[in-house]
Amino acid sequence: MKTSERILQTSLQLFNEHGAPRITTNHIADEMNISPGNLYYHFRNKDEIIYQLFLSYEKKISDALQVPQSRDLNMEDMWLYLHLVFESIWEYRFLYRDLENIVSRSRKLRLRFKRILERKIKTAVAIFEGLVQTKVIQATSEEIQALATNVAVVATYWINFHNIRGDDRNSNDNNLGLGVYQVMALVSPFLREDMRKLLQKLSHDYLD
Amino acid sequence: MKTSERILQTSLQLFNEHGAPRITTNHIADEMNISPGNLYYHFRNKDEIIYQLFLSYEKKISDALQVPQSRDLNMEDMWLYLHLVFESIWEYRFLYRDLENIVSRSRKLRLRFKRILERKIKTAVAIFEGLVQTKVIQATSEEIQALATNVAVVATYWINFHNIRGDDRNSNDNNLGLGVYQVMALVSPFLREDMRKLLQKLSHDYLD
Repeated sequence: MKTSERILQTSLQLFNEHGAPRITTNHIADEMNISPGNLYYHFRNKDEIIYQLFLSYEKKISDALQVPQSRDLNMEDMWLYLHLVFESIWEYRFLYRDLENIVSRSRKLRLRFKRILERKIKTAVAIFEGLVQTKVIQATSEEIQALATNVAVVATYWINFHNIRGDDRNSNDNNLGLGVYQVMALVSPFLREDMRKLLQKLSHDYLD
Repeated sequence: MKTSERILQTSLQLFNEHGAPRITTNHIADEMNISPGNLYYHFRNKDEIIYQLFLSYEKKISDALQVPQSRDLNMEDMWLYLHLVFESIWEYRFLYRDLENIVSRSRKLRLRFKRILERKIKTAVAIFEGLVQTKVIQATSEEIQALATNVAVVATYWINFHNIRGDDRNSNDNNLGLGVYQVMALVSPFLREDMRKLLQKLSHDYLD
């Protein structure tokens, strides 16, 4: 693996584990057993590393935000969407844990992050509209708009919320399952009765 | 007004406007036209000011988190609860904007904040259970638990979410109305049909 890639991988791991504010470029160089000068040869500073990691995250979540175009949608499309979104967030969770700080340090990153949020909402709207057409859910377009926004809020902040409620601040317990469950709970009341029962069963299986 | 109270009021205003990380004790002393020494006579450091402001916030939101005990609940109880919660959050919004950072700097504050979150959920559960009894909403206890948790997530992070979506990072536009609307949208599908229509009307009036 190239040194620049190893720097990114090591940084991602350290940021996720300890939070980006607590990690310096010296920590990263130490962990890799390279000199700070070698690290600076590849990246000007920590913000540059964070920005490159953000771009990888953006690429990953973009794949999750594709709406299937040419076929009828079913509940599994929504499930897959949520699962992929949460998985991307989890892989790059340091971005979310320290979001305010990170977006306040780079206007470029802030604008791109905003665009991802808008796409999250737009994709959720498209999926819900598809599910209305196949009669899996029943909702007005106003309800769909509010629902998709709430899906984005819960997906975006679930890790932070869960961390604050937990006792161990640096907990790296994977709480993806609970996050997906909470978002499905947003959708559940709009489901057709039989789908709602199916969802309750699927949710329990998923959490176990 | 006593100097210590003036320091707290000035700090709250500056923190809300610019974010706590950007404001130093020197900024606060300058704004009040007092010497840094005078400020330090009252507060050891910025974290001490933040902690005192947090205690005022805690007192304020505690009043919002009382469940009416001895009478039937109606939709207005829920509305009042949400309105008061959002109002408290808005008044001390700097805490929420920079939550991860603030709770990571003080274990005391972190534990108290966690307790507020738990009370937010507990109060929401109590209100929803009351509304099930008066047949305003229809939901199982599992649905109520997930719903109350989502209410707490959206209420806690609405300001951050809205700020990131907005173009102006330091926007101080009051978006309480939209936040309350989004939370009501979580509850709406559980409402009895006629209540759901009433809510849609109330929501529009509230947003206008």
